[in-house]
Amino acid sequence: MSGNWERGVRRVVPYTPGEQPSGDVIKLNTNENPYPPSPKVKAAVDAVSDGRLRLYPDTVCRELTAELAAQAGVEPEQVFIGVGSDDVLSMAFLTFFNTDEPVLFPNVTYSFYDVWAKVYGIKYKTVALDKEFRIHTQDYFEKNGGIVIANPNAPTGILLGLEEIESIVAANPDSVVIIDEAYIDFGGKSAVGLTARYENLLVVQTFSKSRSLAGLRIGMAYGDKKLIKYLSDVRFSVNSYTMNTLSQVGGLAALRDREYFEKTRAEIIRVREYSKAKLEELGFSLTDSAANFLFAKPSGKTAGELFSALKARGIYVRWWDKPEISDRLRITVGTKEQMDALFAALKELL
Amino acid sequence: MSGNWERGVRRVVPYTPGEQPSGDVIKLNTNENPYPPSPKVKAAVDAVSDGRLRLYPDTVCRELTAELAAQAGVEPEQVFIGVGSDDVLSMAFLTFFNTDEPVLFPNVTYSFYDVWAKVYGIKYKTVALDKEFRIHTQDYFEKNGGIVIANPNAPTGILLGLEEIESIVAANPDSVVIIDEAYIDFGGKSAVGLTARYENLLVVQTFSKSRSLAGLRIGMAYGDKKLIKYLSDVRFSVNSYTMNTLSQVGGLAALRDREYFEKTRAEIIRVREYSKAKLEELGFSLTDSAANFLFAKPSGKTAGELFSALKARGIYVRWWDKPEISDRLRITVGTKEQMDALFAALKELL
Repeated sequence: MSGNWERGVRRVVPYTPGEQPSGDVIKLNTNENPYPPSPKVKAAVDAVSDGRLRLYPDTVCRELTAELAAQAGVEPEQVFIGVGSDDVLSMAFLTFFNTDEPVLFPNVTYSFYDVWAKVYGIKYKTVALDKEFRIHTQDYFEKNGGIVIANPNAPTGILLGLEEIESIVAANPDSVVIIDEAYIDFGGKSAVGLTARYENLLVVQTFSKSRSLAGLRIGMAYGDKKLIKYLSDVRFSVNSYTMNTLSQVGGLAALRDREYFEKTRAEIIRVREYSKAKLEELGFSLTDSAANFLFAKPSGKTAGELFSALKARGIYVRWWDKPEISDRLRITVGTKEQMDALFAALKELL
Repeated sequence: MSGNWERGVRRVVPYTPGEQPSGDVIKLNTNENPYPPSPKVKAAVDAVSDGRLRLYPDTVCRELTAELAAQAGVEPEQVFIGVGSDDVLSMAFLTFFNTDEPVLFPNVTYSFYDVWAKVYGIKYKTVALDKEFRIHTQDYFEKNGGIVIANPNAPTGILLGLEEIESIVAANPDSVVIIDEAYIDFGGKSAVGLTARYENLLVVQTFSKSRSLAGLRIGMAYGDKKLIKYLSDVRFSVNSYTMNTLSQVGGLAALRDREYFEKTRAEIIRVREYSKAKLEELGFSLTDSAANFLFAKPSGKTAGELFSALKARGIYVRWWDKPEISDRLRITVGTKEQMDALFAALKELL
């Protein structure tokens, strides 16, 4: 039976994540870490994957929160945890962006921001980057209903300095400013320390990249206690138990293994710099990425052609058919072996 | 620095879940299953808690979806999966309840419904149960923006028959009707079969109760393909990867172990009926619960007094200080040993 029930439906165009091909491919398309998580994660997960799963998880993630707070040098009440940084960002949009003024973010950035704005009915305005894909802080000094900056930005990888971040936060005391630091561990300086001085700053991070735990879905945010309380109230109005038991213990184990974290992120930075030089040799022009990916403009063939040709050879990178960036590929930094396979393929194709 | 950033904050009063005490207590307060999950869950989880966690999970939960569809006798496109049934219900409220007419649900029911309505700015109207806590279907025949019925209802445990459910769905072709079947496996008949005939019906279930997997956070919904597509579009506009890898494989293992499922739910039903008789002997009056909990009115002492006295003895049950139900306790059906300990304590207290 069919009536007019569709009248009440919220109609949206969802975010499209990168492909998750199965089988033996070189996967450089979704910015996953090429190294496995700390071996301590498996030990921690396997130790609790038993009868305790019948119980609801700790709704406030007490242990994980305490460790995040300790490592960041903040109080536990300044930490928020969600199902990946996407969940954290989604909750933050819902919580903080409820004025009639537009939320500002760059025209080239993480392509989920406008999707969240649309699903929650939030006004927004995109601010154009310059021709070198740079953010200019003064573009964010006009009246607004909130600001979202990815730092380093995606998919450009370009980093803003802490002084630039602070100038945006300081210029906007009447708005919440979200700094999305998904890639900060690959060479940037976190703005977490600024939360002590700015009530209106929310800094978002994730376990999916530098902790090699995309599969466990853990993201976090740091901010003033009052800001975090508002965010938590909305989260607990949406779902009481978002963080399953295994992700909580696995995340904690990864976080405690600082040595492994330092070793793998240093290796990714090393391979990134090596890859920059190799791609330049192949005629690509590159942004100065501080992330675990490269944003590379080929010469000789179009980015779209290379994307398809690489895919046909089992090498997945990311390409967007959008005017501002369609001449570039976003290439996740893999292992040196994976990158060398990519360069060999590119050499043949170009 | 403090400005006027709070002007844009969504202010809400969150849902309050039951306490999660640690230590050696008898926990009959959050309707968890007293039996551990199928032992096959641990085997499945431990088999993938390795390097694969560096990868994003399967965003569409292909295997889990296929198994749920097969067991329910529907197509995979008729299945939606979320982070517990709370996440599924939250997404459904956001997706389907966007008219100016009020969403209807009982005045005594799962106390998260009005929280979701408030956080998303949805108009709602509660419909009074009768004095025996019964739902009358004709109360749901007036003009509305949607309907939510828990079946069996919470915290009463009272079940509506499939004909009654169908009469509500059939009378409301212009609204989406959500049937929340969190407790259906403990004695009710699911409305999933009706989704073949009614486009406007969404049936929500969970792994947290009858599958003993509250810790993994898995909920699901069944509906017409078009309905599920709308729901998925909104979900993918909020978070691309909600279901972590370990919950997907753990849930699948639990689902495939049908023998274990049948054995444990039969045992819970047996202990429930035993407990009903015992509580009646102790002077309680009870609803005819078809769930894994009992809704019991004591005589001799008030429900509030008993709640506190039991807690002092390490026995946690649930009590709400709300006018309609403050004279009752909601008691989760535990193991026979746990229930006997409860009855012994009550005998002393009454």
